[in-house]
Amino acid sequence: MKVAFVMGSDSDLPVVEKGIKTVKEFGIDVVVRVISAHRTPQAAEEFAKNAEANGIGVIVAAAGKAAHLGGVLAAYTTIPVIGLPIKSSTLDGLDSLLSIVQMPPGIPVATVAIDGAENAGILAVQILALGNMELKEKLKAHKASMAEKVASKDAAVVAKFS
Amino acid sequence: MKVAFVMGSDSDLPVVEKGIKTVKEFGIDVVVRVISAHRTPQAAEEFAKNAEANGIGVIVAAAGKAAHLGGVLAAYTTIPVIGLPIKSSTLDGLDSLLSIVQMPPGIPVATVAIDGAENAGILAVQILALGNMELKEKLKAHKASMAEKVASKDAAVVAKFS
Amino acid sequence: MKVAFVMGSDSDLPVVEKGIKTVKEFGIDVVVRVISAHRTPQAAEEFAKNAEANGIGVIVAAAGKAAHLGGVLAAYTTIPVIGLPIKSSTLDGLDSLLSIVQMPPGIPVATVAIDGAENAGILAVQILALGNMELKEKLKAHKASMAEKVASKDAAVVAKFS
Amino acid sequence: MKVAFVMGSDSDLPVVEKGIKTVKEFGIDVVVRVISAHRTPQAAEEFAKNAEANGIGVIVAAAGKAAHLGGVLAAYTTIPVIGLPIKSSTLDGLDSLLSIVQMPPGIPVATVAIDGAENAGILAVQILALGNMELKEKLKAHKASMAEKVASKDAAVVAKFS
Amino acid sequence: MKVAFVMGSDSDLPVVEKGIKTVKEFGIDVVVRVISAHRTPQAAEEFAKNAEANGIGVIVAAAGKAAHLGGVLAAYTTIPVIGLPIKSSTLDGLDSLLSIVQMPPGIPVATVAIDGAENAGILAVQILALGNMELKEKLKAHKASMAEKVASKDAAVVAKFS
Amino acid sequence: MKVAFVMGSDSDLPVVEKGIKTVKEFGIDVVVRVISAHRTPQAAEEFAKNAEANGIGVIVAAAGKAAHLGGVLAAYTTIPVIGLPIKSSTLDGLDSLLSIVQMPPGIPVATVAIDGAENAGILAVQILALGNMELKEKLKAHKASMAEKVASKDAAVVAKFS
Amino acid sequence: MKVAFVMGSDSDLPVVEKGIKTVKEFGIDVVVRVISAHRTPQAAEEFAKNAEANGIGVIVAAAGKAAHLGGVLAAYTTIPVIGLPIKSSTLDGLDSLLSIVQMPPGIPVATVAIDGAENAGILAVQILALGNMELKEKLKAHKASMAEKVASKDAAVVAKFS
Amino acid sequence: MKVAFVMGSDSDLPVVEKGIKTVKEFGIDVVVRVISAHRTPQAAEEFAKNAEANGIGVIVAAAGKAAHLGGVLAAYTTIPVIGLPIKSSTLDGLDSLLSIVQMPPGIPVATVAIDGAENAGILAVQILALGNMELKEKLKAHKASMAEKVASKDAAVVAKFS
Repeated sequence: MKVAFVMGSDSDLPVVEKGIKTVKEFGIDVVVRVISAHRTPQAAEEFAKNAEANGIGVIVAAAGKAAHLGGVLAAYTTIPVIGLPIKSSTLDGLDSLLSIVQMPPGIPVATVAIDGAENAGILAVQILALGNMELKEKLKAHKASMAEKVASKDAAVVAKFS
Repeated sequence: MKVAFVMGSDSDLPVVEKGIKTVKEFGIDVVVRVISAHRTPQAAEEFAKNAEANGIGVIVAAAGKAAHLGGVLAAYTTIPVIGLPIKSSTLDGLDSLLSIVQMPPGIPVATVAIDGAENAGILAVQILALGNMELKEKLKAHKASMAEKVASKDAAVVAKFS
Repeated sequence: MKVAFVMGSDSDLPVVEKGIKTVKEFGIDVVVRVISAHRTPQAAEEFAKNAEANGIGVIVAAAGKAAHLGGVLAAYTTIPVIGLPIKSSTLDGLDSLLSIVQMPPGIPVATVAIDGAENAGILAVQILALGNMELKEKLKAHKASMAEKVASKDAAVVAKFS
Repeated sequence: MKVAFVMGSDSDLPVVEKGIKTVKEFGIDVVVRVISAHRTPQAAEEFAKNAEANGIGVIVAAAGKAAHLGGVLAAYTTIPVIGLPIKSSTLDGLDSLLSIVQMPPGIPVATVAIDGAENAGILAVQILALGNMELKEKLKAHKASMAEKVASKDAAVVAKFS
Repeated sequence: MKVAFVMGSDSDLPVVEKGIKTVKEFGIDVVVRVISAHRTPQAAEEFAKNAEANGIGVIVAAAGKAAHLGGVLAAYTTIPVIGLPIKSSTLDGLDSLLSIVQMPPGIPVATVAIDGAENAGILAVQILALGNMELKEKLKAHKASMAEKVASKDAAVVAKFS
Repeated sequence: MKVAFVMGSDSDLPVVEKGIKTVKEFGIDVVVRVISAHRTPQAAEEFAKNAEANGIGVIVAAAGKAAHLGGVLAAYTTIPVIGLPIKSSTLDGLDSLLSIVQMPPGIPVATVAIDGAENAGILAVQILALGNMELKEKLKAHKASMAEKVASKDAAVVAKFS
Repeated sequence: MKVAFVMGSDSDLPVVEKGIKTVKEFGIDVVVRVISAHRTPQAAEEFAKNAEANGIGVIVAAAGKAAHLGGVLAAYTTIPVIGLPIKSSTLDGLDSLLSIVQMPPGIPVATVAIDGAENAGILAVQILALGNMELKEKLKAHKASMAEKVASKDAAVVAKFS
Repeated sequence: MKVAFVMGSDSDLPVVEKGIKTVKEFGIDVVVRVISAHRTPQAAEEFAKNAEANGIGVIVAAAGKAAHLGGVLAAYTTIPVIGLPIKSSTLDGLDSLLSIVQMPPGIPVATVAIDGAENAGILAVQILALGNMELKEKLKAHKASMAEKVASKDAAVVAKFS
């Protein structure tokens, strides 16, 4: 199964790319799209309706400001939709965070941190790993590798201040 | 031309009703609907696409929390959409306000105050009044009547403290 | 009918210009003014009182900080007033947004996103288009053109990640 | 000289009354008015223009939501205007606070706490006391009396926990 | 596979129960626990480490204030953790929302709306449904049933205002 | 050594009492005072200057709104000052939190949660326990007892949902 | 009478200077001080106690973060204290604004906009002008001159867009 | 006894270093570590459990975003934990502040200002000084030296404006 990254504007790509890279590192195929909930709503509907049939297991929806993209996609599918709030020029991302996370009962969007593309990617992998032992092992290895990186930075700092 | 009041949930009706009443007082017909951007997206699309043909001049979209309704309707029509943020049980309406007002370039939603149904109604009338002398006169009369009410309250308070 | 762009300070012009340009692209005449609700209140009153007679159909009022301009103009006219909150050096535009959108019952100001000048322009056009078939067609063409731009960016991103 | 209390709506009176009472306790005459910046702008203008001539030394302007009243009065007078933000049904008073305090350069409004009517009153007295020895003495006595009240509450609490 | 609902305090149960009920309606077994990230950290660690082995597919972590529970569980497992922010007596849930959603890179917590227990449940089901046709069908039926409820409320409102 | 609880107003006592009770349960003597940074500044100065000599090891300063008490006491002593923000009628405690925690460099105030009196008490005990084995043991016992309470609630919930 | 400008840190001087300049332009003498509410509290007390005797009519207190300076000075004097919130490196000035404006009953601080030094100056002049015809005339001239500046900018913009 | 500075990421070091330097200036030994509550939770647990035995009297925990580090360490120790919120790329530090300060009853984290590393250091010294006359004297000298610095800046500013 693939992970789809849908963004409301191609100006979001520099942030979203970290999530794409993360998913690819787990050997998972990605679909990357620019679809606007407001300017190309028909494309959004079509994409969401066909996502499952197109082999997509999880959708990451990235958007800024009044970020309706995740909710609009979630309205047309039952596969998990991860919302990635993008910080724009005003309000420091609070607007997109609230627009994404405060979904009304019935249609959830799984929200990650503002500009937290890497976590959107890892969450997507965690979901796909549910019945997939290989991915599970990769996630554990990834976790171990993060721990090692922190440990080596810890060692460097300990050395510096001893 | 009619004014449509669309709300995301019928629990919004107690707030929205003040706007409906306001518009009716100007002798304008209303259409009132419960349409959820997320639970009945197809109804939203259909409603918005046909609004103009159905004689609707302005749409008032009322919603709480991650309030996508206004944006979703605006995506499918070019008639003015007024967004009415509804205060829900958390965050005091800030979430719905930001979800409605911070629309990205290209698709505006004309936002009024949180729970500001009366103003949504008046704004709708102001828009319909553009080429309509009778409505214009009614708006001026309404304005004068508001001023009189304030003036009589002023007189009462002046009397009380003299 | 014309669209008036009134700004509280000429330092708002770089933001407001996008809205002026948008309106002009629809072939609509504009009036552009610098009027301060606090420093030239008499000019504000006079402008608003005469707006209708001067052929103005919609007023866009742009202001930052304690942004009273939209409310002050709306007090003296019944034509629709669009409020455009301008981000200033502190509080990231939240102050002007709340000062504009939270209007008390009776006098609405149709608020768009912080620094959302383009949407202020489109909303103005949508209002003027109410009884104007030519403008309606232009709005539909504009919407189609936005969709095409998104679609071509979509194609580019799809290509990049295939 | 008198202190004027102007409120945007008579629903603000229960809060404002504490300020009126405070000022009266100092033996200063008050003028109390209901004037809406948006519904009776002409009354606001007239009131502010004539305030000085009418023997008013300080104006307290109380308003909620998009609280423009203080700024609108300050636009038409050079006597000090004290802004009193009123908490309304949404946003916990933050909207009125920012609408009042964030005045642009040139036209200050001296803002006190949300619902802080008593302090609006004391501030008005402090201003009037500038060239008035009797008021100065009363302010000092008031300060001493407040200190005594705190001291006696302190004594009670000390006793309770000994 | 089961869904675990872990809450930081049993005072969160009235909110969390809606999520438990939602998951059970899909015929999925639940594990319900009270574990405090700060008062019983060892229980948290143990629970998270053994969750996968104990047949848990998704963890819903509900907590208020400085809501660390989701992050602490996510630190010890690679199965998806859904964060459910609980509104407490101050700050209207903003503190728990930010404490949950703003996770640093590497360890995501899939956040839903403040007090959004039902959506936490649906999201958990969506994740478990990934390789489960029966659950997928139930989700689609659930979606259809929600749409029907909205449609019947719509019909009632339409009737009321015709 | 004693712990002092100083509050800006005796209306804060219902909240503060939980902290007093917590400290007393550890067998530590308390001093309880009502001192206003603004109404009895001299008492604040005197209290802080003499705190150390009076056998006070830690000061808990509770205050609402523009909560200056902690900072004012900290200005006159070098013993640790714990700031306890009190929620008042507006802004949900955010004002007192920021007024207490955002102290400028040089004069820290150790801030706990809004209305977090119990934690203010425990923090005070933790500080006093630094060179005190008996207190250290009591803190560990307290921690164990909290864990037991959570565990028994956990057992009850587990039972309920099995 | 003089206007005193007291700032909590000399790093605030670049902002405060605009206020000093404004006051001087009215021919009023200024006293400028760096006094920290927390690092030199005794100097603050002494300054405030002697302000009146030293010919100071109004105090402007500028401070950032947990900005207690205005409140601390106001505790020791009955002359009006104007609070000028300074934006610092975090929270965009919201912390200093709330720390200054939300003063508890009894001790007001007249708050102006974040970094609003010019308005602090004008407010100080307005207060001093109360019994001073010459200053009153200067204020009116200043107001007229501001209006002229706006009018000439208006003319320039009108010309540009005609 | 030593002061430990633990940070969630070595990118926090530039801020934290001011606190380290402050503590060292008092002649106190420091331990500096990079430990992530989420990526190296076992290291966090181990560190906190052994802190007391390792001669650590106070822990300063610095973290950004959903800053759980302080709470996680405090869960495993009864020595005082000081929380130092770090400003990251979004939300201006508000997220880390709330994640740290809003700890639930039972497990306090003594929070200082956003990026307030120097104050974290001074607070740590104040705590260690409790039974240590030498440190107490150094703190008083430090306080006096701060006062002198402010006084000399005051003198410079007084001179400049005389």
